[in-house]
Amino acid sequence: MSTTPKPFFERVCFIGFGLLGSSLAQVMRRDGLCDHICVNARSQETLDKALELGLCDSTQLDPGQAVEGADLIMICSPLGSFGAVARAIGPHLKPGAIVSDVGSAKKCVYREIAPHLPDGVHLIPGHPVAGTENSGPESGFAELFMDRYCILTPDENTDPQALQQIQSLWQAAGMNVEIMNVDHHDQVLAITSHLPHLIAYSIVDTATQLGDEMQKEIFRYSASGFRDFTRIAASDPVMWRDIFLENRDAVLDILGRFDEDLTTLKRAVRQGDGETLHKVFTRTRAVRRGIIDANQHVPEDQKV
Amino acid sequence: MSTTPKPFFERVCFIGFGLLGSSLAQVMRRDGLCDHICVNARSQETLDKALELGLCDSTQLDPGQAVEGADLIMICSPLGSFGAVARAIGPHLKPGAIVSDVGSAKKCVYREIAPHLPDGVHLIPGHPVAGTENSGPESGFAELFMDRYCILTPDENTDPQALQQIQSLWQAAGMNVEIMNVDHHDQVLAITSHLPHLIAYSIVDTATQLGDEMQKEIFRYSASGFRDFTRIAASDPVMWRDIFLENRDAVLDILGRFDEDLTTLKRAVRQGDGETLHKVFTRTRAVRRGIIDANQHVPEDQKV
Repeated sequence: MSTTPKPFFERVCFIGFGLLGSSLAQVMRRDGLCDHICVNARSQETLDKALELGLCDSTQLDPGQAVEGADLIMICSPLGSFGAVARAIGPHLKPGAIVSDVGSAKKCVYREIAPHLPDGVHLIPGHPVAGTENSGPESGFAELFMDRYCILTPDENTDPQALQQIQSLWQAAGMNVEIMNVDHHDQVLAITSHLPHLIAYSIVDTATQLGDEMQKEIFRYSASGFRDFTRIAASDPVMWRDIFLENRDAVLDILGRFDEDLTTLKRAVRQGDGETLHKVFTRTRAVRRGIIDANQHVPEDQKV
Repeated sequence: MSTTPKPFFERVCFIGFGLLGSSLAQVMRRDGLCDHICVNARSQETLDKALELGLCDSTQLDPGQAVEGADLIMICSPLGSFGAVARAIGPHLKPGAIVSDVGSAKKCVYREIAPHLPDGVHLIPGHPVAGTENSGPESGFAELFMDRYCILTPDENTDPQALQQIQSLWQAAGMNVEIMNVDHHDQVLAITSHLPHLIAYSIVDTATQLGDEMQKEIFRYSASGFRDFTRIAASDPVMWRDIFLENRDAVLDILGRFDEDLTTLKRAVRQGDGETLHKVFTRTRAVRRGIIDANQHVPEDQKV
């Protein structure tokens, strides 16, 4: 565990309260990292659920009122809402407040949020790389972040003290915090996360269009490879729609490379070129070893 | 568990002895389903390992001599070897012997093996849909087949008694046996297994070509989707090369459909068409529920 002193915030406001927000709230409750948690969400149902779960002290449907007096505003809503959220909360932010987020693309945070923040408010874009295919406040759990990576993407104007605060917060949640250039973040995540999701969505969608009888059999024999894709393709539709729209350039770039590589394999299959297939399949096998080595510290139940 | 009487074979010969062969040998040893197991493989190393593991009574480098006197010949070598194996063993098969296999494509069994079998020898093509990314005789375990499906693809000339024997064998291993038309098998597996593997191989290969520095980061952040693909893309290269070559038509057909669907998603990303993305992602989420419902009997540790 980290030896960094634990951070403390008097008043925290969550904008959006799904898997990540509710999990972080659980960590803050558990470790006493704040005095008061206010939750803002678009539906009264989510607010009621947050209260019922004991994960907040107050709720507020209006984002502007929700952030009044908050030291930390953690935006956990889908990326597509960031512009509207920033416009709504901007005029209500307290001087010295820290605005952070958990979005899976980071360039758009500077584009959509930064212009609406008043002077003296600190923006720390963040991305805890953790998740399950479940969504909603009831799916959260404090251990979600344990031993995972959290990427922060400050720029040259970032306040070092605010950065330290957010770093300590995620360390308290058990994460390994990495600082990364914002463009580089969006490229790395396009290949490790966004492309795999787009591919998985696509292949599962192909299967859904083969008719009912075939689909029943696909379900039955899914253990042979298909099933791994269905877990990914069950991820939250709104969250993922927004990721693809907001990280469009990096996703299209890596998708172009993938297309080329798949075309090579397709041609090898069509031409009966076993040598090319064998060469590629041997190369990819080695990657598994690299992943296992890079994840030595991952807890037993999350091991690859 | 099944109430079918357990089958018994005096002499069993395995041609090829990797994950599936060694796992089945473990089942046969455990349940006393045969008197003698002879293993044939291409390398002396595999034969030595099979003996050392106590999984056979004799070994034989020559396939013709290996099948002498055997009641059951279980071909567990890669699909690409089937023609040569059949030519080698054909003249040595005992009348009444059953020849079966565990290959992932089944039309090629009729094409490659059937022509070389003498009259009075029974061919029962089979496909136990089970596996891990590990290969070799030391990776086998008797529980591999438990509660999984095994597909048998007899035709109108298949001997009912021989079919019953193989069915009982896989039931003894804990499998749910299904009878399927051979063409249909190859189509269903092309979508549930072969396409997912080709896609996974392709995406992991794309990642390997992005340079060392990027690759290190891909390993680090692989938990966000990529990692699921690396497990699949670590599957045995020779086995999978042969699957794609032997089930070429069905694979190319489903790959064509996948290409179309991916192009639709790519266009939606490029055009910022969030509505299409959301529609597809919502549809695919429902598939997960279908898979979970269809796998209610799957043991806890193998649950989706």
